[in-house]
Amino acid sequence: MSRITDTDLAQRFGTPTYVYDADLIRTRCHRLKAAFAGSPVDLLYAVKANDNPHVLDIIRREGLGFDTVSFEEALLGIRVGQDPSRIWYTENNMTDEEMTEALDAGVYLNIGSYTRLEAFCRSGHAQRTCSIRVNPAIGDGHHAKVDTGNRDSKFGIRLDLIPAAVELAAAHGVRITGLHLHIGSGIQHPSNLIAAMDRLLETAARIPTLERINFGGGFPIPYREGEAEFALEAFAEQARSRFAQPGITYFFEPGRWIVAPAGHLLTRVNTVKDQGRVTFLGTDTGFNHLLRPALYEAYHAVENASRPAETPTTVYTIAGNICETGDILAEDRRLPETALGDLLRIRDTGAYGMTMASHYNRRPLPAEVLLEEGAPRLIRPRASAESVVESLLTETGYPA
Amino acid sequence: MSRITDTDLAQRFGTPTYVYDADLIRTRCHRLKAAFAGSPVDLLYAVKANDNPHVLDIIRREGLGFDTVSFEEALLGIRVGQDPSRIWYTENNMTDEEMTEALDAGVYLNIGSYTRLEAFCRSGHAQRTCSIRVNPAIGDGHHAKVDTGNRDSKFGIRLDLIPAAVELAAAHGVRITGLHLHIGSGIQHPSNLIAAMDRLLETAARIPTLERINFGGGFPIPYREGEAEFALEAFAEQARSRFAQPGITYFFEPGRWIVAPAGHLLTRVNTVKDQGRVTFLGTDTGFNHLLRPALYEAYHAVENASRPAETPTTVYTIAGNICETGDILAEDRRLPETALGDLLRIRDTGAYGMTMASHYNRRPLPAEVLLEEGAPRLIRPRASAESVVESLLTETGYPA
Repeated sequence: MSRITDTDLAQRFGTPTYVYDADLIRTRCHRLKAAFAGSPVDLLYAVKANDNPHVLDIIRREGLGFDTVSFEEALLGIRVGQDPSRIWYTENNMTDEEMTEALDAGVYLNIGSYTRLEAFCRSGHAQRTCSIRVNPAIGDGHHAKVDTGNRDSKFGIRLDLIPAAVELAAAHGVRITGLHLHIGSGIQHPSNLIAAMDRLLETAARIPTLERINFGGGFPIPYREGEAEFALEAFAEQARSRFAQPGITYFFEPGRWIVAPAGHLLTRVNTVKDQGRVTFLGTDTGFNHLLRPALYEAYHAVENASRPAETPTTVYTIAGNICETGDILAEDRRLPETALGDLLRIRDTGAYGMTMASHYNRRPLPAEVLLEEGAPRLIRPRASAESVVESLLTETGYPA
Repeated sequence: MSRITDTDLAQRFGTPTYVYDADLIRTRCHRLKAAFAGSPVDLLYAVKANDNPHVLDIIRREGLGFDTVSFEEALLGIRVGQDPSRIWYTENNMTDEEMTEALDAGVYLNIGSYTRLEAFCRSGHAQRTCSIRVNPAIGDGHHAKVDTGNRDSKFGIRLDLIPAAVELAAAHGVRITGLHLHIGSGIQHPSNLIAAMDRLLETAARIPTLERINFGGGFPIPYREGEAEFALEAFAEQARSRFAQPGITYFFEPGRWIVAPAGHLLTRVNTVKDQGRVTFLGTDTGFNHLLRPALYEAYHAVENASRPAETPTTVYTIAGNICETGDILAEDRRLPETALGDLLRIRDTGAYGMTMASHYNRRPLPAEVLLEEGAPRLIRPRASAESVVESLLTETGYPA
């Protein structure tokens, strides 16, 4: 069937709206599975990238487990039908309550600090197995803020403390069945991941109780026009030779790679402003809906969806509607001459878009629409101004 | 009565919790009013700084009007009892629908772009007065991301277009009754504000229909230990000589200055981690609750509330529980030797804390507590993990 256009979507669902392509999400899951087929590999989807339950449902049905980073994400995974034993909960600065709740729920705990491992060992909980997360002292990522593997990051247990951690566990009758690392998000040099994998495998060889080795996620996507695709199949080929230890399942945790290119944020231009040196297109979305440009100086390609056939002739800066100068979605982009009412398509926003969104300036969140074989389904309606205000009054117990 | 301690608050309300001091908010409102007493000055509170309705209520009762930046904020202002005519709605990249709704609601529209002024003029709405926001080409602020007055920012109408804007309005029977600027948030050099005020007054002298001149907000607070206080009274004295035009009311729009020092974020240490070069204290909050450090490299003083009498001996980096390396709340701070379970007080977070918070990693928002003469009142309970997940499932229409 013919694909619905952005103009149709905007007419039907309004703007701003995140649009996700279910077929592309499935295709990318297939490609991942094919790349590692025949190897003892299990794939986990990083829920934090996009946790709309309808999206999670698609990915679960494709056979992926879930990588979660909070008890809420783990619970959400269970609620959309995931087998708890296929949910890893990689904790960071977890509370005792969260630990108990997660263990009670039957998810697999991946412990990232020595003090948490001590608390787990001493908890006396019936669940006596866990994974530990190693800080491999090799980091990477699209920005320093997501370079998780470097030795000065808050993540993971230092390599030199791993023997003590394993001893501590053994002394308490806890079996370390998993070993995990994650070097960062949006990896720039896959060779760094290979090096970190080798470092983890060295450590793994000294832990006889292991059943699972998890190399984390971070598979990148090209955000800029002309940037190279991550060579997934070549990487898998290189990794495959390392899956050699009998009785071990190897894990990867892609998030962004699966969903980022399958989403775009549709927004409408309501202001055109020539400030002299900069010409702004003002839109009905902002960094409350898409934080990546403001937080990481992230690049997202922008297209004028109302003028797909026209030549890009004019340089614009695309601004949001939030009351901060830093609310710039894209700087100095060449687009066709753009008019009030035109629709813009902010590309590759299927990951770390909606999950990082806030109500700053008390604005509603965007709507979310899922395209299934080109047919749209509203998977999160936009709240009205009235209902946003009523929700706040209710949540704060303000007298009516 | 004796003040409740942070330990008592944490026991009663749990963590993480934003705590606001109602008495200090009132004291600061009094000080503002006193500074400008006897002058034709009206004060507006910038709702985006902290929009908990109970906080808005206190400030409204102190006699301040509201500065709002979205239709939702304006509506919220009306719902907490503010007179709509004392609500300025400073638009940025507003839609036609927002414009109509705001005008229908009777709030005072402050238009920041030429294309929006054209739309207003042509709208035929019965409301035929408005303010226009000028870009004074003089900026300031605690970070480039909030320097709103500089000529390359998205805000305001260029000075050289003001005559044309006034003509356009006149031609459509629209009276420009207000003129506005805002040079930035957390002003570093108050002399920049004085210079911008003078520039605005020059422009104002050429608009005979004016009734209101608004110099914006941006009054700073000292975030770092030892930083100087904003010399409010001296500034008011300097400004006062400029309030000379008969029939004009002059406005300021402080937000941060009123509420930031009246709030702190109370969080509990659940992890202590020596990574070799950095020792981390891991907490139960993160940049999903307090975005300022990650977004602006903002500094907030941190105290160990469990050990107020102990000597700071040890350097820590305070980390949040969000799965990103950039989730650092405070770097290299000297605190007393800190143990698991200790409470930390992240200071001066009454502004741009909760209003910028998100559910990233699907975590609940913090609770909010208001202290009235030292007695605490819960003004926003923390949602349980279960209810956060249920809300998401409901909002996305996921089948039960």
